[in-house]
Parts: sequence; C-alpha cells; structure tokens
Amino acid sequence: MNSAFRTVWWEAGQVCLIDQRLLPDEAIVVRCTTVEEVAHAIRTMQIRGAPAIGCAAAYGMALAAHRAAREATDGDQQRMYDHLTAAKMILDSQRPTAVNLSWATKRVLEAARRLINPSPEAIAHTVLEEAHAILAEDLAMCHAIGRHGVTLIPPRGHVLTHCNAGGLATAGYGTALAPIRKAHEQGRPIHVYVDETRPFLQGARLTAWELQQERIPLTLITDNMAGYFMKRGEIDCVIVGADRIVANGDVANKIGTYSLAVLAHAHGIPFYVAAPSSTIDISLPNGDAIPIEERSPDEVTTCFGRRIAPEGVTAAHPAFDVTPSRLVTALITERGVIYPPFGDQLRQLVVGS
Amino acid sequence: MNSAFRTVWWEAGQVCLIDQRLLPDEAIVVRCTTVEEVAHAIRTMQIRGAPAIGCAAAYGMALAAHRAAREATDGDQQRMYDHLTAAKMILDSQRPTAVNLSWATKRVLEAARRLINPSPEAIAHTVLEEAHAILAEDLAMCHAIGRHGVTLIPPRGHVLTHCNAGGLATAGYGTALAPIRKAHEQGRPIHVYVDETRPFLQGARLTAWELQQERIPLTLITDNMAGYFMKRGEIDCVIVGADRIVANGDVANKIGTYSLAVLAHAHGIPFYVAAPSSTIDISLPNGDAIPIEERSPDEVTTCFGRRIAPEGVTAAHPAFDVTPSRLVTALITERGVIYPPFGDQLRQLVVGS
Repeated sequence: MNSAFRTVWWEAGQVCLIDQRLLPDEAIVVRCTTVEEVAHAIRTMQIRGAPAIGCAAAYGMALAAHRAAREATDGDQQRMYDHLTAAKMILDSQRPTAVNLSWATKRVLEAARRLINPSPEAIAHTVLEEAHAILAEDLAMCHAIGRHGVTLIPPRGHVLTHCNAGGLATAGYGTALAPIRKAHEQGRPIHVYVDETRPFLQGARLTAWELQQERIPLTLITDNMAGYFMKRGEIDCVIVGADRIVANGDVANKIGTYSLAVLAHAHGIPFYVAAPSSTIDISLPNGDAIPIEERSPDEVTTCFGRRIAPEGVTAAHPAFDVTPSRLVTALITERGVIYPPFGDQLRQLVVGS
Repeated sequence: MNSAFRTVWWEAGQVCLIDQRLLPDEAIVVRCTTVEEVAHAIRTMQIRGAPAIGCAAAYGMALAAHRAAREATDGDQQRMYDHLTAAKMILDSQRPTAVNLSWATKRVLEAARRLINPSPEAIAHTVLEEAHAILAEDLAMCHAIGRHGVTLIPPRGHVLTHCNAGGLATAGYGTALAPIRKAHEQGRPIHVYVDETRPFLQGARLTAWELQQERIPLTLITDNMAGYFMKRGEIDCVIVGADRIVANGDVANKIGTYSLAVLAHAHGIPFYVAAPSSTIDISLPNGDAIPIEERSPDEVTTCFGRRIAPEGVTAAHPAFDVTPSRLVTALITERGVIYPPFGDQLRQLVVGS
C-alpha cells in the first residue's frame, strides 16, 4: 500500500473505504452500496476516527438518497426526506461517542431540506454534493489545524500521541498528526512516541504506519510506558485527537487519553487536543453527559483474533474516556488555538461557523 | 492444568519449571540439567517474577554444585567454589533489575562457604538444601505478606493489580495476590481489576488465570483503562509486587507500575507494594541507581508471535520502571506493613534478618 491512501471516497455510486482492521498488513477496499453496509463498516470499525466516520456517514446518506430517488416520482419529496431521516437514525446509532457522525448526517439532511420544491434527483444530487463538501472541508480543516498546531511544538519536537488521529481518522492529513506533519514538512526536528493503543492497536498499526510512510521518526511504545518516558524528560508535549468536545471543554477520546492527561499534568507537560469544529458539541454542558461506548469484551480478551486470556474471563471495554478541561492545556482547531477557559470561545466557534 | 501448580521445583537432579510463556493455553514443564539451561529459562522469561527467578537461580546453583561434585575429588573445595562463583555470575547476569536473583545465588554460595573443610558432596548437598530453604521460606513469606496485607484491603475490596505477582511469580501464593487470596479465604468481598500488562500480558495470561482457578471475581482491562476506572471510583486500592526496593523506598517493578502510582496518587487511592525482604536492596540509595532492563523491541512489535506494527518500525522496551517512594502508601512485607518514611525500617528489616 503506498502513502497516497484515501480513507473514504465516492466512486461509481458506491461508498469506498479502506478496511482499517486489516492495516497495515492488507489494504482491502470495502465498497458499500447500501446505508446498512456503511453502518456496518462504522460499527465494526472498518472505518474509524471521528471525522472519518462523519465523512462516511455523509456518503451513506448519499447512498440512501440515490436509492430513494430511483424509486421515487416527482413530487415525492416527503418520501425522500422520510428515507433520509431513517438513514440518519441508522447511521447515528452505530457509535454513540463521536458527535461528528450525527453532525454530518444532520448537515446533509438540512442541505436537502433547504431546497425549494425539489425533484428527487435534485435532493440526491444535493446530498452527495454536501457529502463531498464535508470531505473537502475536513481535509482543509486538518491542514488548518496543522498550521495552527505547529506553533505549539517545542524546539526538540518530542511529541507523544495516542490512538490514530491521522489521515486514516479523517478525510486525510489528520488532526493530532497534522501539526506533526507540518513540522516535518517545515524541516523542523520531530520525533513521535506512539502509544500502541490497546485493544485495537490503532497506534501500532495505523499511526506508526502513517508516520513511517512519511519518514517521520517514531518510537512505538506500549500504553503503560508513557509515564516512564515522561519521567525521563523525553516527552515535550502530548497531542491527541477528540471524538467529542463539550461546552465546558471536556474531551471524549479513545480510552487511555485521560490517563495520559493525568500523567502529563503530573509531569508539567503540555497536553493538547486537536480537533475540527465538527467535533464540538455545545449542547452538552460537560463530559459527564457524553455517552461512552461499551464495546465487546472479546476485543480485549483477544489480539488479532488470538485469545490472550483464559476462556471465561470477564473483561471490560469502555472504548472512550473523558478528560476534564482542567487537564487540557489548549485546543487546536481549524480556527486557531484556544486556551482555557474554553466555554465562550467554543460557543463562538460553533455559532460563528 | 489444574490449580495445584508449582512454579519451580527440584526433581531427580533436575530443575523443573512451567514454561510461563505458553500459559494458560499450555502447561509445559521445562527440565533443566545445566546452569546454562536455567539461565536461558530466566532470560527468555520461561520463568519470571522476582522471587520465582531467585528460587530458580538457587536451584541452578545446585545443578552446578552437583555437576562439579561429580567431577571433583576430595580436597577440591576451591575448585567447587570456583565453579559456584562462575555459575553465580552466569545466573546473576540474565536479568539486571530484580535483586532476588543475586540475593539467592549469594545466599547459597555463602552457605557453602560456611562449611569447614567439606567434601564436594557436602558442598553440593548444602547448596541444594539452601535452595530448598529459599523456596520454603519464600512460600512462608508470601503467606505472611497475605496475613499482613489483608488488613489493608478496604471493605468493598476493589483492588487493581498489574503484571503477575502471584503464585507463578513466587514459590507459590504470591506477593501482591497474597492479601487478595487471604481476603477471599476469609470470605470477605473482593474484586480484582487486572491490567493485561503489555507486552508480555502477564496480567491477562497469568493473573487472570490464577484468580479464575480460585474463583476470585476479576475484570480484565487493558493497561490504558486504569485511569478510567479510578476516576469512576471503582478502584479502592492498588497492590503490586516489586523487583527491587532500595534504601529510600523507591520501587522497581514491571513497566507501567509508575504510571499506575501517579494515577492512584492523583485520585487519592492507596498504592501498596507487596514484597518479601529478599527484594530489598539497601546497597542502592535510591531508584535512579537501579539498572532497568531493556528487552528486545520485537517483544513490543509482536503479540504472541504475530506482528502488530509495520516492518521496520522502531520500538522501545524498558521492562521495568521506578516508582518513587513518595507515591507508595505502604510496603507490605513478611514482617508487617511499613509506612513512610521507609529508610530506617527497611534497613532494620534487612539487617535484622
């Protein structure tokens, strides 16, 4: 697989995506022709990463719109909207924590609803165009996050990251990896400590692979080594992505992020969260209100399909945790870097967008 | 494999041990007939856990003594002692962090040296008897740790542990698992959160298996979930083992222990270290002086032999970390529970033993 990968795209009336569960060993393209197939890809984490599943869901809405348009006759707008609303419910329910999913489906539905007396074809066309726009904007936002975030990277450039908030988690370029890529492009020193991120190993499989493709120096570590390297003074800052940022600045992200934030705080190391405004949800007052997805314990008791614990052992699998805003040094958004207190600035960012 | 397992034992002139790398899937007994084979078993972690490798090394000395005795003639004491000294050097160098290894080999050598004008057979007999004594004492110390430590387990009994400081890490019964076992035997409520402990997965494979054998309720978690469960108030205390405790109370233990200690401190959760006095090394002033073993990065980039990261990725593998004594609520030893400041009490414990 070469470095010019695409995470998700529309091709010949299908939603195409790379099955991220098999990376980096295999790069198999999944071609979805129905909303249900897109929903399945999101649920099973063939595609993952908050911005990326937003893009996939938008294209899933386009699939639903095109199918409905083929079956509809002119003047059938209400039936079209009913179909899209049903598709949105299916897609939104696949993963509860990332808000980008419902943000994207809501956005394409609203674009369709803004049309005045449209034909089914016009609705389908608009939904697809809006999905294309979401993808393009996501890529642009990632680059903007990179430009803003690169200013925060300390001179020596030793950055710790968790999970994969890279090109594969977005339309491309990434969120947490964007400032890292930008620093590397500018010829600045950079070295990335990559948490392997059990149980799905997004760090070992995806982030390590992306960095390797771009020849960005990295050291892969197990999740439990982060404190060790912080104590030794080898980490200059932490940059992670986000699945949802709520009104007070609390951040939901991949399980293990909270532990890293506590460790960074204890060592006086800046802890940055990089995310586009589509990740912000000011409808929730604080992190306690964020639904945390519980995934199958089988994903913990196995590794690449091999059992690593005795049969019958109980395991827990919260897929995300919440980092309170007091542990976040700054948020890196496409509009700029936001420092605490976050509340008013987050509200302005969303309302003004 | 049934629950009446033995970690390491002497049988028919051989050092027998269970290959812990294959547990819990397979319980294969490794039979060592030379010092080199015991050294290999220690280095490759067929046997691991500070007290257990101390016992194995003591028996390795017995192998060396018996072989030397077969080749020696009466009056050949010096040659016997030279053989034993060489064997000690081989064994001690296999794993640098745990002090129990050199403690055990030194103890058997000194027992042999105390003999007055002995025959080679008498030396070999004494070394083996001393090895048996070390094993028996270790088991007794584990039970004593259990009796002292059980008093620290809070009423609800939600304990988090890391790695395996159980029967498999000792002559039996365990160090960190001893208070847990004792509480369970007393019919007190207990629930153990088990860190899987990458990269070797001693928690998932060994601790989960030991607890399951005794029907002690447990929840297996990935290492990066500890903070999440602490924040939710689900952890009442942390109990871990130790590979070396130095003069000021700093503790070397399996990588990830330090991160847990920082997290426990941040959440106001007691952090206990359970270890026999053979783990105490007052010759080192503080944790900075403890040698930290760097193991092969291949053990990080693979999981059960399967690659989990792209070919060519650099990984780090410090096998241990050091927890400063200020993060240790108390040390649980066979003589009782020690609270800070640890210095004088540790010295008394070692000198008085």
